[in-house]
Amino acid sequence: MTTTIRTRVAIVGAGPAGLILSQLLADAGVESVIVDSRSRVEIESTIRAGILEQNTVDLLRAIDPATRVDTVGHRHDGIELRFDGEGHRIDFPSLVGRSVWLYPQHEVLKDLLALRLGAGQDLRFGVTIDGVDDGDPTHPAVVGTDAHGEALRLEADFVVGADGSRSVVRAAVTGSRSGGYFREYPFAWFGILCEAPPSAQELIYSNSENGFALISQRSPEVQRMYFQCDPTTDAAAPSDAEIWDALQSRVPGTTLAEGPIIQRDVLRFRSFVAHELRRGRVALVGDAAHTVPPTGAKGMNLAIADVVLLAEALRSLLTESNERLIDSYAERALDRIWKAQHFSWWMTSMLHVAPDASDFDRRRQLGELRTVVSSEAGRAYLAEAYTGWPLH
Amino acid sequence: MTTTIRTRVAIVGAGPAGLILSQLLADAGVESVIVDSRSRVEIESTIRAGILEQNTVDLLRAIDPATRVDTVGHRHDGIELRFDGEGHRIDFPSLVGRSVWLYPQHEVLKDLLALRLGAGQDLRFGVTIDGVDDGDPTHPAVVGTDAHGEALRLEADFVVGADGSRSVVRAAVTGSRSGGYFREYPFAWFGILCEAPPSAQELIYSNSENGFALISQRSPEVQRMYFQCDPTTDAAAPSDAEIWDALQSRVPGTTLAEGPIIQRDVLRFRSFVAHELRRGRVALVGDAAHTVPPTGAKGMNLAIADVVLLAEALRSLLTESNERLIDSYAERALDRIWKAQHFSWWMTSMLHVAPDASDFDRRRQLGELRTVVSSEAGRAYLAEAYTGWPLH
Repeated sequence: MTTTIRTRVAIVGAGPAGLILSQLLADAGVESVIVDSRSRVEIESTIRAGILEQNTVDLLRAIDPATRVDTVGHRHDGIELRFDGEGHRIDFPSLVGRSVWLYPQHEVLKDLLALRLGAGQDLRFGVTIDGVDDGDPTHPAVVGTDAHGEALRLEADFVVGADGSRSVVRAAVTGSRSGGYFREYPFAWFGILCEAPPSAQELIYSNSENGFALISQRSPEVQRMYFQCDPTTDAAAPSDAEIWDALQSRVPGTTLAEGPIIQRDVLRFRSFVAHELRRGRVALVGDAAHTVPPTGAKGMNLAIADVVLLAEALRSLLTESNERLIDSYAERALDRIWKAQHFSWWMTSMLHVAPDASDFDRRRQLGELRTVVSSEAGRAYLAEAYTGWPLH
Repeated sequence: MTTTIRTRVAIVGAGPAGLILSQLLADAGVESVIVDSRSRVEIESTIRAGILEQNTVDLLRAIDPATRVDTVGHRHDGIELRFDGEGHRIDFPSLVGRSVWLYPQHEVLKDLLALRLGAGQDLRFGVTIDGVDDGDPTHPAVVGTDAHGEALRLEADFVVGADGSRSVVRAAVTGSRSGGYFREYPFAWFGILCEAPPSAQELIYSNSENGFALISQRSPEVQRMYFQCDPTTDAAAPSDAEIWDALQSRVPGTTLAEGPIIQRDVLRFRSFVAHELRRGRVALVGDAAHTVPPTGAKGMNLAIADVVLLAEALRSLLTESNERLIDSYAERALDRIWKAQHFSWWMTSMLHVAPDASDFDRRRQLGELRTVVSSEAGRAYLAEAYTGWPLH
């Protein structure tokens, strides 16, 4: 027994990309159905990136009068780059007239789920997707199994894979689950959540002899911090004292406020861009299309930039039968994606100590950091990317 | 039979660094002797870098009323970065209010030799240097053999090694001929001089699928061009037709004006910074202290920046017995040296195609080039470095 549903756009994935896409489509009068393999509770407890670009915040405010980005989130007007034991602030508003917001992804998701479900969006949790049936090129279908174990077939005019880095939809676009451009990095981040007051008001990106550390925040009571580690590190292995030692030794000049460590994880670093972003009437957005290392805080922001382009293209295709924007979607999205890939690689390379770095490499890196912070143009170049290039 | 000469500063090397240093010392009332292993004719026919920073030109004008930098040299108000088949001009004056000058090093050397010899500078050609005798720490001596085969001993209050990348003086500072931080690159430049009119009014730095090329100029009748090659390439091996094919294929969109190739060479790429720049009363400047790959055109300019710092420090030491500036010479010089090492590495990495570059690396590189040229801050950041950070 298969339940068949007809919709205009089938969206796989109820992350920020899928949810925002459904809103932008609804605003254009285009109906959609979203499916996700996770439950609502699982989605709302996703611990992911927490930095929103100015573009992302402007969009959230525009689509959601109830967004809590300005009440629960915090505007950050800068970051600190620390190296050679000294801090150097990059002041965003004075350099580029923009800011970023610290607002964790799970809070964004709570807002967006409330927004879409409140508007009557057809959103189905616990749906396992097997793949895309593109036998009829103008009416692709998403096939899977719903939360009750029944076969589900979602027939649409367009299918969007917003289903993350392990995307199932990707195969319908690239021909394989992994078809893309890859880069691996020889280190990872050891991340913690701890119950402590903030150690700094803004993020500190610290390059030290012992490796990189990022001192971030989450709320007045809970903080997020990371330090560079070997990618094979077992998150359970170090003692709390060893973790605090590692963090403290990487931010000389600051005494971190310590507290109970309530979560620990190891984040692998990889860069990925799918070989194709669209085939016929199936397209990819967000982590399904690309993954960036976390250093530049670009992940969620880049997903949302994809969605803005795709929503416009789908409106044009589905309400005006105009194929021009959908035909150029991949090219236009890739322009920003490769810039963001470069920025993420650059921040990563400039701030981490590669295990095979020579003494020359290390000194060159410090020369680069000095060049950037001592130049208004260098600081602005970094700030433009960090706060987000304007959306097209 | 040893000829012993007493002087205040013994300068080894009559390149731009040594000659300018002798002028700045003379201006401060400090007498010096310069020795060089080469003849005047050899020095004046050195084919080397041809781009002078604004700082360098300002200094040449200040010390030499007869400099031909404004008559034989050409002011360049920009460069072109070409990639993906399109050119993007970096306009220096509008970005940073500075320019560079195309004025080949051998012309600079003719000016400086005429200036110093005209002023009565003691300058001895054809002197082979064996090393530095630093037995008396306050009176180091340069020992060698003069052009007539006679032993020469140059006793001084200070010895300066301005004797290039194969510096003999370096050992007295670092403890060995090669003691320093190194980086090798997996490619080289195949350079030509050809008799042809200019193919472009300004330098074109071209990143192409086939590798890097630089279209430069020398004079209305003779041009200098380079293309990326394997470091083991034999300069004599390719035919003229093969050389023109290699060049033309790397600057799509421009038809190069061809002509007889009158010189060809393979330039190895390396980065080097000596572990120490000064020990007691012996110091290094220019290529004796550091080597940069040619992509950023920093070599001669960086040498001259060293000399400005060292001349000030020697004046203070030798006329006021004040050791403060000489004690901080290395640290202050290294600040600029490592920034320039980074800039040279950056221009090299951004523009060349590394033999082991993955498809990801290649696309990231194009993403970087797009980010730089599409941002005024990015262009200014590059222009600041290319035209030269202000001297201290």
